[in-house]
This record gives sequence, structure tokens and C-alpha cells, in this order.
Amino acid sequence: MSAHRYVPGRVGLLLIDTMNDVFSEDGKAYLTFKEEFERIGTFENLKRLLAGAREQGFPVFFAPMSYTEADYTSWKHVSGVHHEMFDNRLFVEGSWGAEFHPELSPQDDEIVITPHKNIDVLANTDLEVQLRQHNTEYIAIAGMVGTMCVESTARSCMEHGFHVTTFTDATAAVGGRDAYDAMILRYPFISHATLTVDEFLTATRASAT
Amino acid sequence: MSAHRYVPGRVGLLLIDTMNDVFSEDGKAYLTFKEEFERIGTFENLKRLLAGAREQGFPVFFAPMSYTEADYTSWKHVSGVHHEMFDNRLFVEGSWGAEFHPELSPQDDEIVITPHKNIDVLANTDLEVQLRQHNTEYIAIAGMVGTMCVESTARSCMEHGFHVTTFTDATAAVGGRDAYDAMILRYPFISHATLTVDEFLTATRASAT
Amino acid sequence: MSAHRYVPGRVGLLLIDTMNDVFSEDGKAYLTFKEEFERIGTFENLKRLLAGAREQGFPVFFAPMSYTEADYTSWKHVSGVHHEMFDNRLFVEGSWGAEFHPELSPQDDEIVITPHKNIDVLANTDLEVQLRQHNTEYIAIAGMVGTMCVESTARSCMEHGFHVTTFTDATAAVGGRDAYDAMILRYPFISHATLTVDEFLTATRASAT
Amino acid sequence: MSAHRYVPGRVGLLLIDTMNDVFSEDGKAYLTFKEEFERIGTFENLKRLLAGAREQGFPVFFAPMSYTEADYTSWKHVSGVHHEMFDNRLFVEGSWGAEFHPELSPQDDEIVITPHKNIDVLANTDLEVQLRQHNTEYIAIAGMVGTMCVESTARSCMEHGFHVTTFTDATAAVGGRDAYDAMILRYPFISHATLTVDEFLTATRASAT
Repeated sequence: MSAHRYVPGRVGLLLIDTMNDVFSEDGKAYLTFKEEFERIGTFENLKRLLAGAREQGFPVFFAPMSYTEADYTSWKHVSGVHHEMFDNRLFVEGSWGAEFHPELSPQDDEIVITPHKNIDVLANTDLEVQLRQHNTEYIAIAGMVGTMCVESTARSCMEHGFHVTTFTDATAAVGGRDAYDAMILRYPFISHATLTVDEFLTATRASAT
Repeated sequence: MSAHRYVPGRVGLLLIDTMNDVFSEDGKAYLTFKEEFERIGTFENLKRLLAGAREQGFPVFFAPMSYTEADYTSWKHVSGVHHEMFDNRLFVEGSWGAEFHPELSPQDDEIVITPHKNIDVLANTDLEVQLRQHNTEYIAIAGMVGTMCVESTARSCMEHGFHVTTFTDATAAVGGRDAYDAMILRYPFISHATLTVDEFLTATRASAT
Repeated sequence: MSAHRYVPGRVGLLLIDTMNDVFSEDGKAYLTFKEEFERIGTFENLKRLLAGAREQGFPVFFAPMSYTEADYTSWKHVSGVHHEMFDNRLFVEGSWGAEFHPELSPQDDEIVITPHKNIDVLANTDLEVQLRQHNTEYIAIAGMVGTMCVESTARSCMEHGFHVTTFTDATAAVGGRDAYDAMILRYPFISHATLTVDEFLTATRASAT
Repeated sequence: MSAHRYVPGRVGLLLIDTMNDVFSEDGKAYLTFKEEFERIGTFENLKRLLAGAREQGFPVFFAPMSYTEADYTSWKHVSGVHHEMFDNRLFVEGSWGAEFHPELSPQDDEIVITPHKNIDVLANTDLEVQLRQHNTEYIAIAGMVGTMCVESTARSCMEHGFHVTTFTDATAAVGGRDAYDAMILRYPFISHATLTVDEFLTATRASAT
């Protein structure tokens, strides 16, 4: 049971990198996460989270990732996570791998954030202005990768004064179970609520009444 | 003659909003600026600036503007400049008006920044990471509107520690000649060099030898 | 009469650079602005604005400016506005000139933002997190200089999704009357309301009932 | 041996939260980290890193943390890490606990960043403008807490296009050895080099010749 309270009309959902390269069986990164996805139930939980957010009328923000050939080849300081993506040509702009998974895709009235080129969706995209312009003060952040884009974005949203909800069961870590366990211990520090999908949907529903 | 010095290999050019809606005779905002464009020579100067930058091998960054129907209709706090654009449906995403003017368009190897939704191109886009990843420390900023996007971006680039060059003859102001005159007095405060296109190209060429 | 509406409990006041160097007769920059201060009534209006904000219970944020000797002498890219301040040793950290004017000073429960080293108070300080953590969504921005710090901060607050109020009579421009006139034409573009102090206090009082 | 190369004149060192509350035996948070400090040799390594940076002439940036009573009591959205600090009154502004440890303190010519109120030193402080104004492109980040402030700052510096060096032996994690091990696996993703203090000092010395 959760005592967390959410102000009706000010809650939004952010889904990060729900692309084919991560969530489809033929995606380039799928096998990296398959085992943890199955243990956690990530995909099913994300679908239930999205359906619940739509049912409760939250604005939903989709944050995609994509790179051009120029990005892959011309950057001066390539970090480890970028090597991971660049060397394996993950998220090629315009390719199937960089499309949203059919079951985790935006509807016509939902907001698609400009592609993030790094791992913090709040930096270097229009996320902040879109969140604020859609009256979102309580932001729930799910998707992938739990220790990379989700964590950087959660840290930055907290930093900028949002109320941040992270999830134990709507993401997964790079590095398997040990990395997941350490991540789940960090999340409560960098956010304001760390919940399961069901706990979150119950708390927002209860707050609305 | 200019004594400004630029470090070879660290200079970049940013062109803002060189779209049909502003620079083509059938563009929705063209008439607003026509008189000042002709007095200043903005369009010809921009073409010469772009050609000179390419000749000297600078990275060129193109910053486009575009809005979706959702943007026009769903924002909570619509500022004056947004009313100007939203009420007149300027820069409709996917339309001819939001395409680059054919003579002020990116080549294959040039960088297109994600569309800015407000007037500061450094905020809410990937501009900063692209500038830094392409080794740009001295950024020359031209295009439109001189008092809006160009000025906000110059202010923010200065704020973030870039060396900023603004131009007297590669932009124009909203509000005509008086607004232009006041802008030209502000530019030297918010930037590190305020030059004509020819002065800039001469200074960078001289710095390279 | 103003039809602007403000949500009770979400309005805050930001006062920029209300330091002795600007507002006291012996301040280093006072003479630069004296004539416009008297024409506009800036100082009296600021005092009435502050008193009104306190009476209505708004959080008040004071943004001071100060520089160390290291700042004055070690920066790589010194812009025009910084030359103006550095060459004249304005706002020396710890000096009388960098203290708040006695009549425009924070009370014990008011928030003092970390000193801004440039002209955008939202960048490079704790302003954003303090605004959000004090529930401020509607931010009224007054103080000095109208064309520099106030304008940069207003532009950035608009950029980040705040509702921004600027003032015609609680600031002044560098460059005298012409610069002021041009500024007053720009403010409605970069903000959501451009009001007199009295119009603002009337609008917030009306919104609260 | 490290093949990492650093451009002479563009390397800086950032030390985070080297305050008495963390590094002095009577500090409020010391016991939390004592065991890991001893295992890793954090304190001795930090002193050697600082001495080496000074010897090689790098600019050194000190990032302190401090809170006012108003901060502790008036924030709207208090995250887990803030509860940790606020509930225990860590880093009280003006107190001994919020002073730099005597052996990890700035010298007169070194730069003290404005206090960070959250965990990302690049957000909400003057760090970025100070780094850029002191010609720092390669930033080495050490201090505490490895999984909180150091990690958030490293993530954000990478995000903004800096070359980032993290350390295995000049920090420690909240959560003990397991959290440390997971952190050491994350660092190479979010930075460009993860080194020991000695490897870093050797690499920068080699790059300078």
C-alpha cells in the first residue's frame, strides 16, 4: 500500500526508449535485456502502465532515441555508453530499430519528445518545456535503460524541482540482477516515490477522488 | 578592420530559422521583414556567410523551427512571441513554410539541430552537445529574428561560456529600423564581437594563417 | 485594467540586482541610470512592489550579483557586459556596493539566490530549483538592468515554461529612453504579461478572491 | 598503464563535497563511509590527487554543499537524498560541518563554486561557466558521494560535451561494497575514462610532454 499522493491534473507519464531495438525480439539490444525483462515482467508492466495512464487521462510523453551516421562518426568525446550504441549502430535514424514498438507507441494526441542524443532526456531535448506546458509537476518515468537514460532523467527531473516517481518493475538494468538490485537501492534517493506499476496506478486513482 | 582573433578548428556557424516562411517571398512572415531585409541586404549576406564558412571548413549548424497542431493548441502558458507564431500557424511541421530556403539549406555533412519550440536555440534542443562534440568554442550566430531567436541564443551561448559573434548585416529585427538600431547597441554587450559578414570572414581567415 | 489571472499560491516575485552599486546615490553605476530612474519612478515602484508582494504573501526571491578578484581577472571570454562590470569593478564581493540597498533587502524568511556571474539569473544559479520548490509557476521579474539581467532572465523563464510577468515601471534600460522604448516593445513578446506595478498588484489581488 | 590522452592546458579537477561533515572524524556523515574510506584509501588518494593537480598547474574547482534552515523546512518536493540530509541537518550553512576539510581546502587562487542544493553540481550552480571560462574541457571529478553528487555531475558533464574522468579510488558509495562494485561498473558508461588517481596523474603528465 502506498500513501503517496498525486495532485490531479498535474501528473504525467514519460516513457523512454520504447523502441524496437530494445523491446522487439529482433532488436539489436533485445538479447542483452531478455532475461531481466522476463524476470521482472517489464514489457507487460509497461503496457499496463500506459493503458492505466491513458485511462486516467494523464499526458503521455514518448522519448525516442536515434542517431544519424554523422552522429556515429563525428563526435569528439565518445563516452562508454555512446561507444556501446555507436559501435553497434543502435537506433539508426529512420530504421525499424528506431521506431517505437507497436504496443508502446504514441497515439495521435500524445507528445513525442525530440530524440535524445545522450542519456538524460531532460537535457538537450524539448522535454522540460513540454512537461511544463502540459501542466506536469508529478512525472512518472519508465522504460529503458533503468541505470542509464531512466536514471539520468530521474536525477535531472528531481534536480529541476519536479516530483519524480521511479518504478521497480517497468524497466531493467544493464548488468543484470546485481546491477538491478543496486539500482533499486539508489532510486529512492534520487526520486520521491519508487513504486510498482500497480502501486502507482492505485495511488493516482486514490488521489483523484 | 577587426582585431578579433579566432582559434582555427574551433569556430562554428549557427544559422537560425532560415526557413521559407521567413526568407521566401511566399512565406507567411516574409512581408514583415521585407523592407529591412532589403535595406540591410540580409539574404545576400547570409548566402555569402554560408559560402565563406563552407570554404573555410567550419562546421555549420542549422536550427529549424516547427510546430505540430498539438503544440499550437495545447500549451498552458502562451507568450507573446508564441501567440504571434501560433495564431498565424507559422512553421507548420512538414509544410513548405517549415522547410529550409533552398539557398540556405544544409548539405549532407552539416548538422541539423532538433527544432526549437521557443526562441533560445541553446535551450530545449541538442545544440550545446552538438557544438561541443564538433569542437566549437567560437560560435557565430546569424539568421532570424535578430531580436528574438538570434538574441536569446546569443545571450545563452555567452552565458554558457562560448565566445559569441553576432552580426549587424545577417539578420533583421522585429519592429523595423528603430528596433534594429536598439538591437545593434545591445549586441556588443551580450556577445564578444559584433561584426559584418565580411569583417568576420576576414578575421577568421586572418586567424587561420 | 488588466484581465490577467494569477493562480493563488503559485505567484512569486524575483528582484534582480537591487544592490547599492545600482540604487544608492554613491553606487558606481547609479549615475548611469539616475535620469531614467527619475523619469520612470523605478525606485519608488520597486518598494511598492515589494511591499505589495509581502502583503499578499508571495515568496520573494532576491538575486544578487558579485564578483571576486579572480573572476575579474581570469576569465577567458569576456563579453561586452562583463567588460563593463569588470573594468569598473562593479559588485565587488563583500563590498558595500554588492550589498542589497537597505530598502530593497531580503527579510529573514525570504530567499537569496546564489550570485549570478552573468546576466541570466536562471542559468548558473539555484533560481530554478528554488522557484519550483517554493511552488512558483507565475514569476514576476523586476529590478535591473531591464535590457540585460531582467530581459535574459525573463526570456529563460519563458523558455522553461514559467508564466512570466515583466514591468514597464520597475526597471530601466541601459542606453536611456530610446533603449527603454525598444525594450518595452520587446517585453510583450518574451513574457506573458507586461504591466505596471499597480496593474500587477491589482491583478493578483483580484485573482485571489 | 593508460593510453588516455589529455590536452595540456584544458584539464581541470573538480572536488565535490570535501567538507568536514563527510571527511572529518567528528562529521555527521563520517561513520557512514568510514569502512569504505579505509578499504579504498579515499582520503589519502584525494590528497595525492589534489597535490598532483596543483603541481601540474590544473585549475581546481571546489564544490561545497550547504543548506539554510529555510531550505530544510520549506521545500515542496523533498527527495530521498534530501530527506537524508535535511532530517539529519547535514551541511548547515556557516557551521563547521559545512567547512572544507583543512587538507582538502581551496587555496587563494582556486575556484569555489556556489553551493549545490541538489546532487548535480552542473545544475543550479556556476560550475559550467567557471569550467568554460577557465578553459577546462577535460574534467576529472572526485570526492563524495560517488553514487550521488559525483555520479550526477559526471553524467551531466558528459551530457554537455565535456570529456569526463571518474575515479575508482577517490570516492566511495552510499550502500557499502556492493553499491561500490555496481558503481564501478557504471562509471565507464557515463564517462570517458575511469582511472585510479595514479593512472590519471601519469596520463596527464605523459600527455603534457
